Amino acid sequence: MSADKLPKAVKYENGELIFLDQTKLPLELVYEKQETLEQVYISIKQLKVRGAPAIGIAGAFGLLISMKNYLEKSVDEFFKTLKSNGEYLISSRPTAVNLSWAIKRVIKKAENSLNHTVEDIFKIIEQEAIDIYNEDKNICHNIGNYGEKLIFDGMGILTHCNAGALAVSELGTALAPIYKALDNGKKFRVYADETRPLLQGARLTSYELYSAGVDVTLICDNMAAYAMSKGLINMVIVGCDRVAANGDTANKIGTMNVAILAKHFNIPFYVACPSSTFDNMTLTGKDIVIEERDKKEVTHFSSCQTAPDDVKVLNPAFDVTPNELITGFITEYGIIKPPFVINLEKTLHKR
Amino acid sequence: MSADKLPKAVKYENGELIFLDQTKLPLELVYEKQETLEQVYISIKQLKVRGAPAIGIAGAFGLLISMKNYLEKSVDEFFKTLKSNGEYLISSRPTAVNLSWAIKRVIKKAENSLNHTVEDIFKIIEQEAIDIYNEDKNICHNIGNYGEKLIFDGMGILTHCNAGALAVSELGTALAPIYKALDNGKKFRVYADETRPLLQGARLTSYELYSAGVDVTLICDNMAAYAMSKGLINMVIVGCDRVAANGDTANKIGTMNVAILAKHFNIPFYVACPSSTFDNMTLTGKDIVIEERDKKEVTHFSSCQTAPDDVKVLNPAFDVTPNELITGFITEYGIIKPPFVINLEKTLHKR
Repeated sequence: MSADKLPKAVKYENGELIFLDQTKLPLELVYEKQETLEQVYISIKQLKVRGAPAIGIAGAFGLLISMKNYLEKSVDEFFKTLKSNGEYLISSRPTAVNLSWAIKRVIKKAENSLNHTVEDIFKIIEQEAIDIYNEDKNICHNIGNYGEKLIFDGMGILTHCNAGALAVSELGTALAPIYKALDNGKKFRVYADETRPLLQGARLTSYELYSAGVDVTLICDNMAAYAMSKGLINMVIVGCDRVAANGDTANKIGTMNVAILAKHFNIPFYVACPSSTFDNMTLTGKDIVIEERDKKEVTHFSSCQTAPDDVKVLNPAFDVTPNELITGFITEYGIIKPPFVINLEKTLHKR
Repeated sequence: MSADKLPKAVKYENGELIFLDQTKLPLELVYEKQETLEQVYISIKQLKVRGAPAIGIAGAFGLLISMKNYLEKSVDEFFKTLKSNGEYLISSRPTAVNLSWAIKRVIKKAENSLNHTVEDIFKIIEQEAIDIYNEDKNICHNIGNYGEKLIFDGMGILTHCNAGALAVSELGTALAPIYKALDNGKKFRVYADETRPLLQGARLTSYELYSAGVDVTLICDNMAAYAMSKGLINMVIVGCDRVAANGDTANKIGTMNVAILAKHFNIPFYVACPSSTFDNMTLTGKDIVIEERDKKEVTHFSSCQTAPDDVKVLNPAFDVTPNELITGFITEYGIIKPPFVINLEKTLHKR
């Protein structure tokens, strides 16, 4: 099974919490045992753990292990500390929706269990964190199983950024169909965009696909049209951050480039994501605010400076791919095709 | 005048040859006096001088200064050394067409002057090298003057790679219209693609535009669609390496990406180049062989490693933009519009 061979972003085994330090990839594979609230806070803040679902899972387990030293306290004191520790962890990445969602879910569970002993409350919230992990794992496996049917022998598949095992519990979203196809013995090639400015495609995607034994080729972002023109790409699969009610999709900067190129070359363009990414309160992509990040990410990579200090820079964190460029959404409930306004809404009712 | 404020790749002043070491840009502006054949060979081989016209100019002057110690020799000995020095310099970048063209032109001039004294032959080939420089300068200024008419107040212009002053005698090809528009007091913005893998856009284009006082913004290659979707780009101007008889255009990898995006957003896409780039012996882009370069350029970013050692890589040096994506060619004879098969051929007859 691919899942067993893949690096894991977050592991919880025998009461021990372990994070893979993704800032050291792909040169070093360093697993770090997490023992204190402060350590978990720093790990999340410094992006040792990244990827929306993985951050949520890391936050839930991180909050849990921060309570290990409070098992002798009163229920009241235990719960107060749980709440303040949770708030502190949320502040490590205040805009990460999954982080606050997972932590609030753990706190809510404890709040509903105040009639138990502290030891039992601890076990109950431990189970809640495990549930969060397992629910994400089931979603990823389902996305993988539905998406796998799109992959055939001899295909070339392009992906952008990292929506793989390193971003979730297991397998990933965009990469889950690829791992399932590998497990089913299909023969295909994957092309990974390096994904400037932070190079998640080079550092993470090419690393995890290579580790799992997938036939992966790394390209610079500007080589996608070349690869498509040579007939090397038959399908694109990417992940996403948020899907508006009409199907407009926010994802890592560069995704819209790939979608436009795919349309030009008549190549199907799929977005793989859990249905929790569908935001029917956001009507279209125009309502999505795009965060501008630090200019140093563009003028530098790691410690290497490539442009003059004072040059102006544009550094949007993501772009919004218009719905008409998207062939379908691969979700845990199956593949959603247009018309998206109707079919995304239908999917939300299944949850 | 922009031309006076711009860094110069090659200077020949009072019998002294000076190269700008472009490998140190944008962090250091280092001019190196060239005194020996070996030094010039190494400077060209190590890409201290790059850009097709600049390499030709560097080769012509480099050959000249390598002959300074042979002024006391016989005409026969002088000419023999000139030929062997020329052949040696050509071998520094064997695929650079302009290098061998310029060196052979200098040798030919000497060959036609063997009835003169060695001292006079030296003066004659010195004038030939100066002529090569001045002819390129005139071409660039003409391209600039024709292209400048396309630029209006308030415009945003996207360029890819470096087809600027650093690649030629003065001003550049793609950047010449920009410098002319600046001199004419027009107000506009330029967006420079960083141009992975070798980052000529970040290192060279953003540097020289910024130095000249142009309002320049650096972006990663995958941000072009975002900038276009926000209405920031009204025109694209790029340089090129070779134009086939039907207008298909080979240029730095990533150029085709930009051309497809420009078409999607209905943005004019211009190629600026001397008519010497038109190759009517190559019928279409399919006949252009694309060189694959070292995989380390992709797995590393400057000196920083970003991907696993053993991962496969695609690293084409350039791509071929199909003629139907090109609005026009900006040349020293004016702007050439479709039908290219007819109008490119007409231009060749003007030479």
